[in-house]
Amino acid sequence: MSSMIILTEADLRKIVSLDLDAVSCVEDAFKALATKSVAMPPILRLDVPEHRGEVDVKTAYVPGIESFAIKISPGFFDNPKIGLPSTNGMMVLLSSRTGLVQALLLDNGYLTDVRTAAAGAVAAKHLSREDSKVAAVFGAGMQAKLQLEALMLVRPITSARIWARDGSKAEATAAELSAKLGIDVLAKADPREAMRGADVIVTTTPAETPIVSAGWLEPGQHLTAMGSDAEHKNEIDPVAITQADLYVADSLKQTRRLGELHHAIAAGTIAATTEFPELGQIAAGQRQGRSDAKQITIADLTGTGIQDTAIATLAFGRAKAANAGTTFES
Amino acid sequence: MSSMIILTEADLRKIVSLDLDAVSCVEDAFKALATKSVAMPPILRLDVPEHRGEVDVKTAYVPGIESFAIKISPGFFDNPKIGLPSTNGMMVLLSSRTGLVQALLLDNGYLTDVRTAAAGAVAAKHLSREDSKVAAVFGAGMQAKLQLEALMLVRPITSARIWARDGSKAEATAAELSAKLGIDVLAKADPREAMRGADVIVTTTPAETPIVSAGWLEPGQHLTAMGSDAEHKNEIDPVAITQADLYVADSLKQTRRLGELHHAIAAGTIAATTEFPELGQIAAGQRQGRSDAKQITIADLTGTGIQDTAIATLAFGRAKAANAGTTFES
Repeated sequence: MSSMIILTEADLRKIVSLDLDAVSCVEDAFKALATKSVAMPPILRLDVPEHRGEVDVKTAYVPGIESFAIKISPGFFDNPKIGLPSTNGMMVLLSSRTGLVQALLLDNGYLTDVRTAAAGAVAAKHLSREDSKVAAVFGAGMQAKLQLEALMLVRPITSARIWARDGSKAEATAAELSAKLGIDVLAKADPREAMRGADVIVTTTPAETPIVSAGWLEPGQHLTAMGSDAEHKNEIDPVAITQADLYVADSLKQTRRLGELHHAIAAGTIAATTEFPELGQIAAGQRQGRSDAKQITIADLTGTGIQDTAIATLAFGRAKAANAGTTFES
Repeated sequence: MSSMIILTEADLRKIVSLDLDAVSCVEDAFKALATKSVAMPPILRLDVPEHRGEVDVKTAYVPGIESFAIKISPGFFDNPKIGLPSTNGMMVLLSSRTGLVQALLLDNGYLTDVRTAAAGAVAAKHLSREDSKVAAVFGAGMQAKLQLEALMLVRPITSARIWARDGSKAEATAAELSAKLGIDVLAKADPREAMRGADVIVTTTPAETPIVSAGWLEPGQHLTAMGSDAEHKNEIDPVAITQADLYVADSLKQTRRLGELHHAIAAGTIAATTEFPELGQIAAGQRQGRSDAKQITIADLTGTGIQDTAIATLAFGRAKAANAGTTFES
């Protein structure tokens, strides 16, 4: 017989939120990736073409962390036609000592949303100018909203612009964020306009052809691209990466295969073997982040298993402390 | 809100057992691998060296099957020191149409035991002589016991020999199987002796150096090697594979990387590109199985995600029909 905790999305929303604790837990995970012998195997990917479905399974073991997560993330893109969300998912948390299942986190993707937004905050903390006030966000979905919230945790953002392919969604998201965050958030019809004069730009779209053209980035701007988590996704003109002063990957192995970098390599603008710093190396002080106010910096975030292990371990610790969830014997 | 069924090992033992239904469900899965555009990504493998731990994640989608399983199999080899089993595990069953989680199968490896033994029966059915009466089993653990039971479902086995590195375990297992199955089961101290004159041999050990030497296999014998599911495991002298009349893989892609074949390739006795039939091709009638009573045949079973999807789908169907398990809303 073994005993595990089952935590639903409702349980998890009560104990984990997008705050500075979540940001430091994800930052620590990136540091561990740079400083410890983390085991992070390639993402397992299953395609279900008959139903426009795909499933990613991610995991990572960080020495010293008592648990590790295995995350199952399905995306089934015909679901909205029958009134279901496209993406959902869950995590299984196992003991690093025994491999026994400690918790089932039935989060429907909520913890992924939080850890993804937290990574945006970590990137902005190390790469954007400290006085960044104006944000531009591309996309109008959950990550667009959370990325702006995440930026506000680490930078003194006073206004933001939203651009999305669907202008009415951009308007609605801008209005919602204005009300929620208490800053000016305006929808812009033109992505170039949205970027002009912004200090930090975050792209969160599932675009398959670049939205951000080479030459649009201005001195001093930082851009985080977090929409590209699969080979066919591409938000940034590959030339923009060569023009940046500093390109940073969450995991270079992954961005070479899945991220914006992958498209630059495919386009021949960057050699496949070119070395770039990883976010964790910068967070750990091993590599230099932004070194002056005029630099153009780009963070390429594809999403990593260490973030899942980090946020799931945080959730499990809090659940135990709060006696949350349902205990299940099996 | 979505609803799923949670099935414990106790629930699953009531509704799924090693019987001809389990064998046909696994046989159908192998046939599907040969005849349909099955998606079966490489196994995701995570190592936790500090605690002698490893986790395999397997999955497969079979067009036409309404669900697919993602199986998490941890093996933590220091667990017995603290009174826990080395291996456990669970499966998550997802809808092929929506990606929603339908069931959590907290089987502690029970369904894996059943589907692995069932694959042994499928191999014996297509590769051993129909009149096979004498079985030899190497190993004295759970699979040793189940493989003998599985053989008896498909062949008229009247006696068996057990060899294991630990002779006292072999004695105990032989006594247990004699009593349970009602046939003569004898422990043998020498593996060569155990094999001599047997019709079917099944190796189920975690050996890292070969137990079965080249030249031991006799005309008419069939051998199923199912212990090698990782690069470092090796039960059969690579030369024995070249001497067999017929070598069959569960998945050639996997046996080239993980199975007995992998060691023959590494030893240079077989070229990496050599084509061999797969069990599903034989079961589907696309390739010839045993063609005469004198052939020496070898089946190399590494364990496949399609078997997990097949057995988990069977379990889910039966659970719904029996109203078994606990319904959980999340």
